[in-house]
Amino acid sequence: MTKNFIYKFKIYYEDTDSGGVVYYANYLKYLERARSEAIYSLGLTNTKLQKDYGTLIIVKSCNIEYKKPARFEDELEIISSVLTKTKTSFTMKQIIKKDEETISEADVQLVTVNKEGKPVKIPKILEKFLN
Amino acid sequence: MTKNFIYKFKIYYEDTDSGGVVYYANYLKYLERARSEAIYSLGLTNTKLQKDYGTLIIVKSCNIEYKKPARFEDELEIISSVLTKTKTSFTMKQIIKKDEETISEADVQLVTVNKEGKPVKIPKILEKFLN
Amino acid sequence: MTKNFIYKFKIYYEDTDSGGVVYYANYLKYLERARSEAIYSLGLTNTKLQKDYGTLIIVKSCNIEYKKPARFEDELEIISSVLTKTKTSFTMKQIIKKDEETISEADVQLVTVNKEGKPVKIPKILEKFLN
Amino acid sequence: MTKNFIYKFKIYYEDTDSGGVVYYANYLKYLERARSEAIYSLGLTNTKLQKDYGTLIIVKSCNIEYKKPARFEDELEIISSVLTKTKTSFTMKQIIKKDEETISEADVQLVTVNKEGKPVKIPKILEKFLN
Repeated sequence: MTKNFIYKFKIYYEDTDSGGVVYYANYLKYLERARSEAIYSLGLTNTKLQKDYGTLIIVKSCNIEYKKPARFEDELEIISSVLTKTKTSFTMKQIIKKDEETISEADVQLVTVNKEGKPVKIPKILEKFLN
Repeated sequence: MTKNFIYKFKIYYEDTDSGGVVYYANYLKYLERARSEAIYSLGLTNTKLQKDYGTLIIVKSCNIEYKKPARFEDELEIISSVLTKTKTSFTMKQIIKKDEETISEADVQLVTVNKEGKPVKIPKILEKFLN
Repeated sequence: MTKNFIYKFKIYYEDTDSGGVVYYANYLKYLERARSEAIYSLGLTNTKLQKDYGTLIIVKSCNIEYKKPARFEDELEIISSVLTKTKTSFTMKQIIKKDEETISEADVQLVTVNKEGKPVKIPKILEKFLN
Repeated sequence: MTKNFIYKFKIYYEDTDSGGVVYYANYLKYLERARSEAIYSLGLTNTKLQKDYGTLIIVKSCNIEYKKPARFEDELEIISSVLTKTKTSFTMKQIIKKDEETISEADVQLVTVNKEGKPVKIPKILEKFLN
């Protein structure tokens, strides 16, 4: 991943609620899509990571702040970067923007675990993504 | 299952869209909840069905008609019954109502399969549900 | 819309269920995204259609057949075309494919309505889409 | 609301992902359901709050920690309580439990706004809920 990984997406009917804005839980879906796309940009997939490295990336915590509402048919982008890392975890800053305006901002702590859910060392293949 | 199995539920923000009504895909979630609750009413679970009988119930087709919109904070019920069955499949009629009014109506064809996805005979334990 | 409108998308974690495949209700989300993208390809949006023409497109019925499961990180496409139309409604055939294989196939009946939900004549601007 | 408001719910197929566990964004749906049910327990609805008091409750931030995975067909409960309040906002602690075990824990900051999205004084009718 480059310093800032950018993912663009659109708001469809499925994303909105009767308040006329994007439903607050759905932002976590977009954050996850952006993280998956960051992995794809390395030539990796979550499936390969699991099959070849026995590793899954799970979310340990998510701290999200809602600043402005996003609306139906908006075109948004997420700018993701790595804030900190340890041997078995890393924290990402993910900013959701509409044009130049910040819609929402999240700090997401991720842990690499094995199939039994135990933390394991972050695979070397992910290092490019984390530096 | 008795002739008609009844499942009651409420519409939360997550269920609605910016049109102010329940998003059309979400009705299929409620139909599935109602079918799961019908299974629970037999003292069974999908998990047990899979572990003890090696059987999963999958949806082969769904034909749903939207008659009236449901709205935020509506209280709805689904009346489910079995229309027809074969050795490895059955079709259910599921009617979603608000008070006495039909909101939506679906015919859902279900197949019992093994872990490899091949159709298998409907387990005896489900017979009560199907007669 | 050209005769066949094509929409491509990916399967993320949010789309799958514990059966390891795409959850059956989610296909209706993709069908709706594909229909929205078809509208965007005309230089239109649902929002403009509502503001400038007082028209919403609502789903009257959906008949979907599930042929093969789609899985996490699959890349799929939807091929949409108009089957039939009346003055106030039209039916689309939407085929979901993975490579050359049909995953799912749906007939979706759509109605153009005004803000009160009454059927209205399909706006001229949509004619390109329907012929 | 009593000091601790309790909301019970079940995990259906729609809630899980191909990792075999509840998808991380979905917990925010349950938190919102629990908050809506707390409002219903006061004899109120979100709809009434909007119509009669011109007030909506929106989420300003959500800080959620995932401690244990929840799984398909689990029966969970959410224990919600108010941590702090100001004139126009309040923060809730919401703990998701399976039996005696904490699955997830969230601090959610909520703001009462008018139809234009401007913060307004928390309506008196909500005071019972907040003390």
